[in-house]
Amino acid sequence: MEFNFPSKVLFKAIESFNSLPGVGRKTALRYTLNMLKMEPAEIIRFSENIRKLAEDIRFCEKCHNISDQIVCDICSNTSRKRDTLCVVQDVRDVLAIENTQQYNGLYHVLGGVISPIDGIGPSDLNIESLENRVKLNEVKEVILALSTTMEGDTTNFYIFRKLGNLPINITTIARGMGFGDEIEYTDELTLGRSIINRIPYKGAVK
Amino acid sequence: MEFNFPSKVLFKAIESFNSLPGVGRKTALRYTLNMLKMEPAEIIRFSENIRKLAEDIRFCEKCHNISDQIVCDICSNTSRKRDTLCVVQDVRDVLAIENTQQYNGLYHVLGGVISPIDGIGPSDLNIESLENRVKLNEVKEVILALSTTMEGDTTNFYIFRKLGNLPINITTIARGMGFGDEIEYTDELTLGRSIINRIPYKGAVK
Repeated sequence: MEFNFPSKVLFKAIESFNSLPGVGRKTALRYTLNMLKMEPAEIIRFSENIRKLAEDIRFCEKCHNISDQIVCDICSNTSRKRDTLCVVQDVRDVLAIENTQQYNGLYHVLGGVISPIDGIGPSDLNIESLENRVKLNEVKEVILALSTTMEGDTTNFYIFRKLGNLPINITTIARGMGFGDEIEYTDELTLGRSIINRIPYKGAVK
Repeated sequence: MEFNFPSKVLFKAIESFNSLPGVGRKTALRYTLNMLKMEPAEIIRFSENIRKLAEDIRFCEKCHNISDQIVCDICSNTSRKRDTLCVVQDVRDVLAIENTQQYNGLYHVLGGVISPIDGIGPSDLNIESLENRVKLNEVKEVILALSTTMEGDTTNFYIFRKLGNLPINITTIARGMGFGDEIEYTDELTLGRSIINRIPYKGAVK
């Protein structure tokens, strides 16, 4: 659908929402018309919350996670294991792993993965600071928790080449069948990997 | 998923996006993290476009359509038929009907439909101004183009009661099978209405 918009103000707001990932013209129009039903004060609060993303967002100087302080809550939490670093692509992954409540070490947020097609090379990511962190601190293990894509694998390999000579363990998170998956419908690569990486049976999963 | 957000600024932006229709926590997070990848100037432009929705949006004083001027482009267009008013629920419907290029009259935007459950009564809608428009101008036909919901039907009936005594034609847009629909899968109410309201066959649809 192509619309002739009756107002420039409307058009520009739609254009802005349209720039969000997965938001087409019709959804952007829906968001905009819905905003018009809000109180003006609420619209201005919305606008301010977005402006602050440009002006007030800081990144933790240690792990590059989003933070309001210079060092984030996770890095400054003394009850966490400081000798384990989990390397992730972005902030979303930190939130997802924190949410499992199964990890008590620190993180290192790369800010992306190596992707020549998108023009992202190792120097665009926080890899040098990862090296420095590993060298200067008493890190015993680096867990690579990137996506199982071509780009993720490339990045894993690059980091492995950079850190492989240091006296640390480098591990990756387990790949295999998800809970609730059926053998029949699991792709052969995943199923094959699940068999190769089989682990001793310990009774029911806690 | 419940997250512990590492930053208040992040949290508030997510909360704002979360208030849009059909946007859950995870989508709001995705929008917010995507915004962080934009240039600060672009984020501020986004923020400004939203602020203007609160400050600069005007509604046409005749038809209540969104407009940058006092009277909208449609109402001030002298080549349109001024004796026909199409009554719609909101701006979106004006855009959809304009997009068909099959209508050359004027509009009247109600700003909603009568919905006691949501606390919306006739006085919350632009019905009085519709009456005045019909009485004061040379209107020959009022087309009711509201949704076929309980609320739409109630509103149709209310308007019909208000305008029924005036020397004008009151019509509603046709209900029936859509183009491309199959008889077999059409609900019985629609199919029944399609048969009752059958029209003379005129050969292929232009």
